[in-house]
Amino acid sequence: MTLYQIQYRSEVLGGEGEFGVFLPEKWRDTDSLKVLFLLHGAFSEYKSSLLFSSVARYCDARNMAVVAPSSHLGVYCDMAYGEKGYSMAKEAIRISGRLFPLLPQDPEKRFLLGISMGGHGAFKLAMEYPDRFSAAAACSSPIDIVATMELLESGRHFGGAELFHTFGSADTCRGTDRDVIHMAEQHAAHRTPLPRLFLCWGDDDHAKAEDLVTVEKFRKMGIPLTTRVGRGGHSFDMWDPLLEGILDWMLEGGDRDGAD
Amino acid sequence: MTLYQIQYRSEVLGGEGEFGVFLPEKWRDTDSLKVLFLLHGAFSEYKSSLLFSSVARYCDARNMAVVAPSSHLGVYCDMAYGEKGYSMAKEAIRISGRLFPLLPQDPEKRFLLGISMGGHGAFKLAMEYPDRFSAAAACSSPIDIVATMELLESGRHFGGAELFHTFGSADTCRGTDRDVIHMAEQHAAHRTPLPRLFLCWGDDDHAKAEDLVTVEKFRKMGIPLTTRVGRGGHSFDMWDPLLEGILDWMLEGGDRDGAD
Amino acid sequence: MTLYQIQYRSEVLGGEGEFGVFLPEKWRDTDSLKVLFLLHGAFSEYKSSLLFSSVARYCDARNMAVVAPSSHLGVYCDMAYGEKGYSMAKEAIRISGRLFPLLPQDPEKRFLLGISMGGHGAFKLAMEYPDRFSAAAACSSPIDIVATMELLESGRHFGGAELFHTFGSADTCRGTDRDVIHMAEQHAAHRTPLPRLFLCWGDDDHAKAEDLVTVEKFRKMGIPLTTRVGRGGHSFDMWDPLLEGILDWMLEGGDRDGAD
Amino acid sequence: MTLYQIQYRSEVLGGEGEFGVFLPEKWRDTDSLKVLFLLHGAFSEYKSSLLFSSVARYCDARNMAVVAPSSHLGVYCDMAYGEKGYSMAKEAIRISGRLFPLLPQDPEKRFLLGISMGGHGAFKLAMEYPDRFSAAAACSSPIDIVATMELLESGRHFGGAELFHTFGSADTCRGTDRDVIHMAEQHAAHRTPLPRLFLCWGDDDHAKAEDLVTVEKFRKMGIPLTTRVGRGGHSFDMWDPLLEGILDWMLEGGDRDGAD
Repeated sequence: MTLYQIQYRSEVLGGEGEFGVFLPEKWRDTDSLKVLFLLHGAFSEYKSSLLFSSVARYCDARNMAVVAPSSHLGVYCDMAYGEKGYSMAKEAIRISGRLFPLLPQDPEKRFLLGISMGGHGAFKLAMEYPDRFSAAAACSSPIDIVATMELLESGRHFGGAELFHTFGSADTCRGTDRDVIHMAEQHAAHRTPLPRLFLCWGDDDHAKAEDLVTVEKFRKMGIPLTTRVGRGGHSFDMWDPLLEGILDWMLEGGDRDGAD
Repeated sequence: MTLYQIQYRSEVLGGEGEFGVFLPEKWRDTDSLKVLFLLHGAFSEYKSSLLFSSVARYCDARNMAVVAPSSHLGVYCDMAYGEKGYSMAKEAIRISGRLFPLLPQDPEKRFLLGISMGGHGAFKLAMEYPDRFSAAAACSSPIDIVATMELLESGRHFGGAELFHTFGSADTCRGTDRDVIHMAEQHAAHRTPLPRLFLCWGDDDHAKAEDLVTVEKFRKMGIPLTTRVGRGGHSFDMWDPLLEGILDWMLEGGDRDGAD
Repeated sequence: MTLYQIQYRSEVLGGEGEFGVFLPEKWRDTDSLKVLFLLHGAFSEYKSSLLFSSVARYCDARNMAVVAPSSHLGVYCDMAYGEKGYSMAKEAIRISGRLFPLLPQDPEKRFLLGISMGGHGAFKLAMEYPDRFSAAAACSSPIDIVATMELLESGRHFGGAELFHTFGSADTCRGTDRDVIHMAEQHAAHRTPLPRLFLCWGDDDHAKAEDLVTVEKFRKMGIPLTTRVGRGGHSFDMWDPLLEGILDWMLEGGDRDGAD
Repeated sequence: MTLYQIQYRSEVLGGEGEFGVFLPEKWRDTDSLKVLFLLHGAFSEYKSSLLFSSVARYCDARNMAVVAPSSHLGVYCDMAYGEKGYSMAKEAIRISGRLFPLLPQDPEKRFLLGISMGGHGAFKLAMEYPDRFSAAAACSSPIDIVATMELLESGRHFGGAELFHTFGSADTCRGTDRDVIHMAEQHAAHRTPLPRLFLCWGDDDHAKAEDLVTVEKFRKMGIPLTTRVGRGGHSFDMWDPLLEGILDWMLEGGDRDGAD
């Protein structure tokens, strides 16, 4: 096992940020080396995802490195005056490429995986940089933030004030680059080749309703979205047993424009 | 999640050692707080066991802290001129009690879990300090080091020179305090109340033959030993799915003299 | 050397925070053990202060532990919608007491040291909890944030927009609990016994002008403030040579109401 | 500041080892980037050297990265059955080059610095790989291990049994590749261009007598050795004030065959 715990000068933070890099046992075999960008969920940092799951072991068996940024509570969105959650994740991905030139730059070998809030970041990165990643998977994630904000505004969402502070309102998000669905629609209209997409949730998961809305929207747009349902609620007890299947789905490949 | 990565002055090493401490979410509930001493296997250090399994999450759900010493390649045995693998583990356990007075000292709340080589350490600690721990579990571990050395000496063991350097030979171990079976026999003769004991191995595990010998010896001594067989070989792919069952078995309790 | 790197569940952050704890060689001698709360400056985190200075060595020689919170870029002030820099520092101090009961609770043995922005935090903590600390020292710090905001508003301060986002304006700070001078005035009026106070700056330090204003204000209030001038600018090249003198000044003691 | 804490699979250890890498603020300026290999002293690991000195800051100002291996208590010598202290350091240096291709491979930009026991390692690496490094500096180090063993054997050395276990005796070291003086003599005979060499000690340092013997031997061999004497004993209180001068001496350059 090779594990780096990295503290780096972050221009985004105006201070120092942290991220982790895990290298599999066979990292010297750079031909087969792949990289998974692992985006953590709310209320945690990168180490939690590694400790609470066995993702490092699953990646080790598949010769995948893991780059795990820490993005605080920013829902992978930049606030005007607060956290720069999205820029932080982008910066960590960019810097990891410079600091670790052995990590593959070939998009076919680069994958995004986000847990809960992190899945929002994964899909957002896939939409902003569709030619940089092979696939993006989200576990129990609020992909359609406009729909989430509408739920919030109507009082029917479990979330809280921090989402308002980050996104403002459904109206101020809709049709902007903070609206992942809007970005996907643009890509659908322009027939942009996209990374393959995956979304899963638990059968007892508070994100289930939101994810079903997302699935329907992608269906209407004609963008393929592979889905799976885990057993249980919004926790690694449900996610961990799905992770190997997700990695295998990533590695199956297929056309990056989703025609698999 | 609360995770400590600790570097400390080790009198045993004559230098600095490392160990990790994980506190569960509800650590402030010290009444229900328990502690698991997690002993890693060969060719790794404490972080590997935490990363390659989900043991932190399983303990979190049971309000168990984890104290994870690093013991290098010493097979939890002190060498005359080399590693002091056993003393290192003991030192980390002792120091964790001083540095973290919130960890329970009540033996009923203290558990040992060892992976592979670490299970040897867990049983050895259970035999040397039978009144300090509630239970000890070993996963795919060489408990009967004399039998292991005999296999080695006859060329029928996968292991290598490092075991010779550590233990010498079957003859120099037999009947000494490096011989866990001998210690168990003494306890059986004196009817010492012992921690509850657990041993598991995989159906495709190179440790299986050794563990079956150990099971038979404990049966003859009349010391209860709970066993389980996992699916697969000598790796966390096999161990991780057993871990929650092991923790639950630990927490079931029962008489510490094995009369459960 | 004993060093802890701690990731903990922060209620303030709504996520996970980090802090470091250094224990001196003789920490077992709890009678003489003291604790220094070390508050880092802007654009860094706790590890930087430890790496860029020799403060750990200086404390080791004086049997002082170091508790070093990470507070991001919050200037040890809580923002309405952004960083909670002050609460983070307070939380780390509070939690360190629970997690490390061996750290002294006797106020005579507890000291605050802040670098640059961290010195603002040190004085603020001294004013809010005057009976919890023996002394507070600030190196090149903006103590009088109202004066700093006035400089900013008139365009004569090197600082930038992040200070506006944190403090708003001179007018919205003045006379509030974000105004350390106001708090000091209240204490002067009530003759509250205060921790001993220390302020230093460099002869080529951009904080010099601000610190001279602060010195004058404390003189007028009649609150003793020990000062020193280092050689050089706003960096550890200037601060590090002052640190042992600061620690010795702390340990000289004297009456906590400043009558030394 | 960029700091990596790295745990890696060590073939030398047959397990996992650790090392640290510090990158200066301006690491992107790879033209001027240099690298310092920092070898720690006995009874410590790599983090101690970074914490107890300000070497990271001094290197930051000179655009030098720091690679700091952890080598346990092996005196940078491989034992038959115990620590492989020398191989560990070599492995960390070798692996750092693969993992961080941005670190310079140009020997003119690569420097060795060892503290106490680490200086022995620095000179040994300089003698084994004279074309890989620009300079090697040792602080209070036993360079001439044969002389040290003779002192030990005669009972006039402060050291202890661990040196016997590592080196055997003066007789078994003399003229072997564990005898740095012997290696230097071979180079002198063959007029091998060597890295520039530096040795310092304290005026109240128990290593002073040994270092004076080393100085005399290098003088006789005709190999230039720059020396300096610090104020104080065998500790970072004495070494830290010398470090900037040592780095500046390294960077002055001059011919690598010592003809400066």
